Amino acid sequence: MITLYSMPSSGNSYKVRLLLAQLDIPFEHIATEYAGGRELTKTDAFQKKNPTGKVPLVEFEDGRFLSESNAILLYFAEASAFVPTDNYARAKVYQWMFFEQNFHEGSVATRAANLTYPDRAHLRTPEILDPLLQSGNRALDVMETQLLQSPYLVGDHYTVADIALYAYTHSAEEKGGFDIAGRSGISAWLNRVKQQPGHVSLDWLPG
Amino acid sequence: MITLYSMPSSGNSYKVRLLLAQLDIPFEHIATEYAGGRELTKTDAFQKKNPTGKVPLVEFEDGRFLSESNAILLYFAEASAFVPTDNYARAKVYQWMFFEQNFHEGSVATRAANLTYPDRAHLRTPEILDPLLQSGNRALDVMETQLLQSPYLVGDHYTVADIALYAYTHSAEEKGGFDIAGRSGISAWLNRVKQQPGHVSLDWLPG
Repeated sequence: MITLYSMPSSGNSYKVRLLLAQLDIPFEHIATEYAGGRELTKTDAFQKKNPTGKVPLVEFEDGRFLSESNAILLYFAEASAFVPTDNYARAKVYQWMFFEQNFHEGSVATRAANLTYPDRAHLRTPEILDPLLQSGNRALDVMETQLLQSPYLVGDHYTVADIALYAYTHSAEEKGGFDIAGRSGISAWLNRVKQQPGHVSLDWLPG
Repeated sequence: MITLYSMPSSGNSYKVRLLLAQLDIPFEHIATEYAGGRELTKTDAFQKKNPTGKVPLVEFEDGRFLSESNAILLYFAEASAFVPTDNYARAKVYQWMFFEQNFHEGSVATRAANLTYPDRAHLRTPEILDPLLQSGNRALDVMETQLLQSPYLVGDHYTVADIALYAYTHSAEEKGGFDIAGRSGISAWLNRVKQQPGHVSLDWLPG
């Protein structure tokens, strides 16, 4: 069985738990949450497994590792319906996943993290929060433009691109103070994603 | 023929020019550089092509588009030797490419951009540059750890992961003030990448 190191409250970790649940892939879970478990990622033993010191991290039974949430999604979803077989559609899935890691996470998720994690209380100044609101709104507008045109980010079917972007978007209003209700494309898409077979919420853990 | 919108001085744009040159894929080039050309990306016409307003952007003859540098690399390299066929090796390529967009670019490339582009002169304060030096050094150390173990980022062969990380690493010392000479794994790898057949430098443009 694979082992997944993941942080229960983190969107990047949630992505992987959601996909594994939907693909019915069993995994052992090691939580690396704040207050205790997170210290694990600072140890030499963990940093040998993943030199970035980040989760999620997958450890395979043969001792190999895979990190970076979206790489993990693509690996496990490879032969499933969640990765299109058409070359161009697959490239569009990649496009949205790189957009997520390069633009969306650094704005939408970072603002939410600053507002919710106790050790980030010093990052709640207007100088820091206001630009994150602006860039996060731009990222959400890019999604909204697409989701007013197609039910999912890449056409008519749910893919790993939707999982990647659902993770931090579904809580962007509650945690990050972004206006999601006013974006009808995103709001309808969030409901579509939630209704996928096998969907689990952020707090689901195998057990 | 495809059209590539790219910024001559940008690493993200350079990645795509380098791959297309190595795969011998002809393209029409539209430069979106500072001082003139870059204004193009602010127009409504461009933002209809790519709602993020960013380059590189590929326009296909049939009017479809593809953005995000690493998604473009994966699309064009798909059936080439630059993307491994083994599932795990391919996932490791993805891992490095997401690491590049999520960790390396935001530190190594951002510090270099602040130090070189005139419109970023106000971002040259120690409060901004010092944390970027620290996080950039961590990103470079992650690469160094791997490159002391294998000639390329994913094993024995040159892949799109190497292209993705070469783009901003090759100029990180000159433009960003990072110590590359002192990292022997990265230094040797930079030379290996430069010696690949069909390699072109940042300032190469088709013509």
